[in-house]
Amino acid sequence: MLQKEGLAEIISIGDELLIGQVVNSNAAWMGEQLFSSGIALRRVVTIGDSEADLHAAIDDACNNAQFIFLTGGLGPTSDDITKPALCNYFGVPLVWNQEAYQQVEALFARRGMTVTDRNRQQAMLPANCIAIPNPNGTAPGMWFEHKGSVIVSMPGVPFEMKPMFADEVIPHIKARFGGNNYFFRTVMTTGAGESAIAERLKKFESTLPENCRLAYLPQPGIVRLRLGISGTDGPQALQALNSKVVEMADLLSDIVYGYDNEMPEETVFRMLKERRFTLGLAESCTGGYLAHLITSLAGSSAVFKGSIVAYANEAKTVLLGVDEALINTFGAVSAEVATAMAQGARSSLQTDYAIGITGIAGPDGGTAEKPVGTVWIALAGPEHSEVQHFLFGDKRDRNIRRSALAALNMLRKALLK
Amino acid sequence: MLQKEGLAEIISIGDELLIGQVVNSNAAWMGEQLFSSGIALRRVVTIGDSEADLHAAIDDACNNAQFIFLTGGLGPTSDDITKPALCNYFGVPLVWNQEAYQQVEALFARRGMTVTDRNRQQAMLPANCIAIPNPNGTAPGMWFEHKGSVIVSMPGVPFEMKPMFADEVIPHIKARFGGNNYFFRTVMTTGAGESAIAERLKKFESTLPENCRLAYLPQPGIVRLRLGISGTDGPQALQALNSKVVEMADLLSDIVYGYDNEMPEETVFRMLKERRFTLGLAESCTGGYLAHLITSLAGSSAVFKGSIVAYANEAKTVLLGVDEALINTFGAVSAEVATAMAQGARSSLQTDYAIGITGIAGPDGGTAEKPVGTVWIALAGPEHSEVQHFLFGDKRDRNIRRSALAALNMLRKALLK
Repeated sequence: MLQKEGLAEIISIGDELLIGQVVNSNAAWMGEQLFSSGIALRRVVTIGDSEADLHAAIDDACNNAQFIFLTGGLGPTSDDITKPALCNYFGVPLVWNQEAYQQVEALFARRGMTVTDRNRQQAMLPANCIAIPNPNGTAPGMWFEHKGSVIVSMPGVPFEMKPMFADEVIPHIKARFGGNNYFFRTVMTTGAGESAIAERLKKFESTLPENCRLAYLPQPGIVRLRLGISGTDGPQALQALNSKVVEMADLLSDIVYGYDNEMPEETVFRMLKERRFTLGLAESCTGGYLAHLITSLAGSSAVFKGSIVAYANEAKTVLLGVDEALINTFGAVSAEVATAMAQGARSSLQTDYAIGITGIAGPDGGTAEKPVGTVWIALAGPEHSEVQHFLFGDKRDRNIRRSALAALNMLRKALLK
Repeated sequence: MLQKEGLAEIISIGDELLIGQVVNSNAAWMGEQLFSSGIALRRVVTIGDSEADLHAAIDDACNNAQFIFLTGGLGPTSDDITKPALCNYFGVPLVWNQEAYQQVEALFARRGMTVTDRNRQQAMLPANCIAIPNPNGTAPGMWFEHKGSVIVSMPGVPFEMKPMFADEVIPHIKARFGGNNYFFRTVMTTGAGESAIAERLKKFESTLPENCRLAYLPQPGIVRLRLGISGTDGPQALQALNSKVVEMADLLSDIVYGYDNEMPEETVFRMLKERRFTLGLAESCTGGYLAHLITSLAGSSAVFKGSIVAYANEAKTVLLGVDEALINTFGAVSAEVATAMAQGARSSLQTDYAIGITGIAGPDGGTAEKPVGTVWIALAGPEHSEVQHFLFGDKRDRNIRRSALAALNMLRKALLK
């Protein structure tokens, strides 16, 4: 049997999770909560509405984890098997729980509804459990202790589960069992691939102590570097972690744009806001994607005035005042046109900064001298203007994404000057 | 030991999944693929970057499933433990795989990069595996057979894993193990929620034969209705399926926009292309998202001329010629301004059709009479023009998505006239 002290396991229950109808975001959310509480989540097991599979999962979890969290299968409908399955597992009957019933009654009173028999049944709980209040629903949570493990069963509905977990379960566990010290920090990079970064960090990695771990988390255009450390002395571990983070960030200063999961658009939005600068865009190959990234952020109107998505050449001339001669001489995908687009957007949108992006996203439109993936990005600012050439890959969606990220990175670096 | 024939299990590997830094959307996507391939997913087990936990998970999976799918831990960096862990598990060495190497070489050649030692190592594979090509990355997939189970190891990066799984792994499994004769067709709907649709299909569902199954697959703004049928006589089952699909589509004709996973932007793009119409946009609350949806499609420049993302009011007047008086009298979020935006886009972009979208995405900016989620969408066309009011919810990202889908649906219906 493996060491299970301080380790947690999540058992997510529901057919809808297995057929991909629902993404298991509950587990990710709980993992984050556990992590920041210093409880190490060892495993997440997702099963369907099957009593046999649930019994097997609990048996197994009791060997591997001190804290076991079940979500799902507590609703009032027939496919909600968790409660009867737990009774059979522990060999106990359902018994009436007056406290739980009063909760249900109170909830229905607040909603001006009368309690049905079906709801009344929700106050019947396994004899060996302690009820956990559910302020947002009719199904109470249940706390069991078995074979040296705590087993907590909660509803799967996120807005019922989350407050129960954060306000009741975690505090109880911490109060009674304390917790380890495990710390993570994430360094965000853009503009270099996973293996290129690994090359640069080879020596650094070899200097990492036993209790320190580096993880590479790539996604299109971004690589997140997560440094984790464990230690009994919290403050000391945290200090060691932070010094390693600084060391790593220095080694990668040209590609590090932020920390702790801040996305590039958030970084740039924050910097523009702090400096009271406004932004406008002229997008061709990104087709509105960069505008979308920025306007996905609440409050972006404080800095973002708009984007002219000039997909057709006439749109470039009519809306951005790009001289037709430039397009005819240098081509729509050129330094000259990118620059004219940025200047056109800056003047027509009257912003401090503007970005012009033109390129060949593919799959078609490439030539020998301008292959698919060719992108020109121009930045026009109060003092500083520049234009850069990029050659990305042959995947349309990735070229769009990488172009937008490259543009954000150019702006970020300009704002740092 | 439980019956494992025809059952699948997914083992997702990576600390980032356990601390909630990454939501396990791979598992949901694979679950959907397996479901529509008639392979029953019994369980998903998510573990961290731990060799011991991986070995335990594989042991356990071999008892429960005939098909075992591993994702994650295949990158070129040191935290990617899957390959060495599999070698230790099977007790085999890493051996050079020339085919795999040529794949890596070709990929780098396409990107104009030279292969590093680290990349070269990716062509070293466990001696007992068959390599699965990875057209989108340097880490090949691996196919093992062990204790009567197939074990497939794939990268965790979605854009590498998905094509590998859908184009290589699933077809191999179907070809070799057959599986039942499962047929699926999907009816795509937009504009109605899951439970509303379920109400309308109550009677229809009760008429479905034993071997026929209806699945509701909701995603923001879209509900996919997947009708599946199993039978030994292929042609007959298929015929029965198609007649039920027609029956269901008739019942929902007002919300059905397409079939078999065609996205709304694809439907509209196809219709515009067939009719040789061009499209322009004026976006406020969608902030370029609708333009992004359309320009994500290869060849969209054939119909799409551009979008004026007029986020600030000045941009609406300067770029779209919206009369300032209209904004002052009716407000930026109004039928009048939406209409003026559509007309402005149509004339400045010189398109057959243009759409104007203005609304309050939230979380801020709502008022008593114009709460967050209020959206006006106007359509301007050669003969036909209209404007519609929508009231969506309080989630910014959802409001942006639903506004774009509503606009596409308005245009689709206009094109049908």
